[in-house]
Amino acid sequence: MTSEHWELQTYLNERIKLIDRALDHYLPAADTLPSRLHAAMRYSIFAGGKRIRPILLLAACEAVGGDLHRALPAACAVEMIHGYSLIHDDLPAMDDDDLRRGKPTNHKIYGEATAILAGDGLLTEAFILLSNPEMWVDTDPEQSRKIIHILAKSAGSRGMVGGQVVDMECEEKLVDLPTLEYIHTHKTGALILASIEMGAVIGGATADQQRALCRFGEAAGLAFQVADDILDIVADETELGKDVGSDSQRGKATYPSLLGLQGARQQAAELQQLAISALDVFDESAQPLREIANYIVERSF
Amino acid sequence: MTSEHWELQTYLNERIKLIDRALDHYLPAADTLPSRLHAAMRYSIFAGGKRIRPILLLAACEAVGGDLHRALPAACAVEMIHGYSLIHDDLPAMDDDDLRRGKPTNHKIYGEATAILAGDGLLTEAFILLSNPEMWVDTDPEQSRKIIHILAKSAGSRGMVGGQVVDMECEEKLVDLPTLEYIHTHKTGALILASIEMGAVIGGATADQQRALCRFGEAAGLAFQVADDILDIVADETELGKDVGSDSQRGKATYPSLLGLQGARQQAAELQQLAISALDVFDESAQPLREIANYIVERSF
Repeated sequence: MTSEHWELQTYLNERIKLIDRALDHYLPAADTLPSRLHAAMRYSIFAGGKRIRPILLLAACEAVGGDLHRALPAACAVEMIHGYSLIHDDLPAMDDDDLRRGKPTNHKIYGEATAILAGDGLLTEAFILLSNPEMWVDTDPEQSRKIIHILAKSAGSRGMVGGQVVDMECEEKLVDLPTLEYIHTHKTGALILASIEMGAVIGGATADQQRALCRFGEAAGLAFQVADDILDIVADETELGKDVGSDSQRGKATYPSLLGLQGARQQAAELQQLAISALDVFDESAQPLREIANYIVERSF
Repeated sequence: MTSEHWELQTYLNERIKLIDRALDHYLPAADTLPSRLHAAMRYSIFAGGKRIRPILLLAACEAVGGDLHRALPAACAVEMIHGYSLIHDDLPAMDDDDLRRGKPTNHKIYGEATAILAGDGLLTEAFILLSNPEMWVDTDPEQSRKIIHILAKSAGSRGMVGGQVVDMECEEKLVDLPTLEYIHTHKTGALILASIEMGAVIGGATADQQRALCRFGEAAGLAFQVADDILDIVADETELGKDVGSDSQRGKATYPSLLGLQGARQQAAELQQLAISALDVFDESAQPLREIANYIVERSF
């Protein structure tokens, strides 16, 4: 490993620690009644995870010169939304997965009913947190409204939830590339883009900076999914913590199934370039974003 | 029927029309992609329903002299939250109900996976709507944050979702009155109280008016549930649109099962009195709230 890689890994680990501490602080304590529900909510949030969305959010905030501590509530809120979506996706009525990141899925531990409600609780908690006045001291109150709107839109029926529905509808069907892109720009891309956008707003981005970061977010979000599809095929089970090739076994279209493994890798590399060049307007302050974009794609090579 | 009752019914019908038109306007159109998801979201919202929460919200706004049209987005948001909670409650993993208000439940029409996601979509849509700047023209931006916070807290794991979890945990168990009150003040009471509180805030209530309306909301919310428990025993199936006695068949504790039918009716009457007397500080402007509180309880007599 080069020293550059080592530095990124240190950076990521430190950010994960910061975000995990904040999540622990902001989530209802495990002994808050009803304690089984709060234990279930915490179980999935703390069952591992790369924290890629909150890390991107904090990095976007810093790229425009903002204070990352002011962005921590939004970083935690986006991770709560991501966590709820995984709990619901894993349910027997949905993907019916027993394992997630190598650990039993929420409903395998707490049962289906509590898992549904733990997801509902996490989704709602994100908005409790973002509307809490203590999170916005000395801030233009208009900013909290804006942040909530960005997050809610990206997570809703015309965003993440919409992508999940189309993904399900397309199982066992022949899917073309535009449909696959629709699924991924909605199912995963929307929340990644929203993370970058929220970080930019909280950091006080200019309109130009905001546009550049959004172009970065769109490309990086899709690159993330293409890389995930590739990893699903090539990684071994231990590394991924779920069944290898589980998507293709389920009859889901993936980038490698449509473009071939080499075509998918080329697509990922092009998106990586697009993401990096979107950051041309920034100096060193955007270096973490550049390295994260490289890391996202290169882990699949 | 007395003319007083007739007037209330006219008032309620007009308010239902107003709220239904606003819901139709604010919800994503049925042909918005993914259209099956939006059809599922709309199906449950427009499958009947007394609109009691939005009606109370508008009435609380008017009781303090506010303009009900400014409160319509919040009224619709609370109905979306209520609608999502019914979809998820009816799921096979939860109450496993086939009928709701005399119609097939969401998962019976759209399947379990889409029903889960339609619920998620409605929950998120409430926050998209409340954070939409077009809903808050000429309004202190601090107000949208406040409204979102009231609604999110009441719906979350320490509110409605928490009540639902404890309700499930108590099935087939001997439950005492304090536990039953916990369930109902959380499962249904929290959202009813939040409706009143949001109406008061949007209407520009003074601190005294706000306190009085909250006392009204707490009593009316619990009265509503006691009356519902009584109706579950005495109403015939056509009227209620679900199986008669379905709660007690499922081994759920109810007010009549703990207090007897007469005891439960007395409890409802006491809560009705408490709700009405909380409104003593108001003049005629709170008359609709008084009549709704009477209607809530008296329909079970």
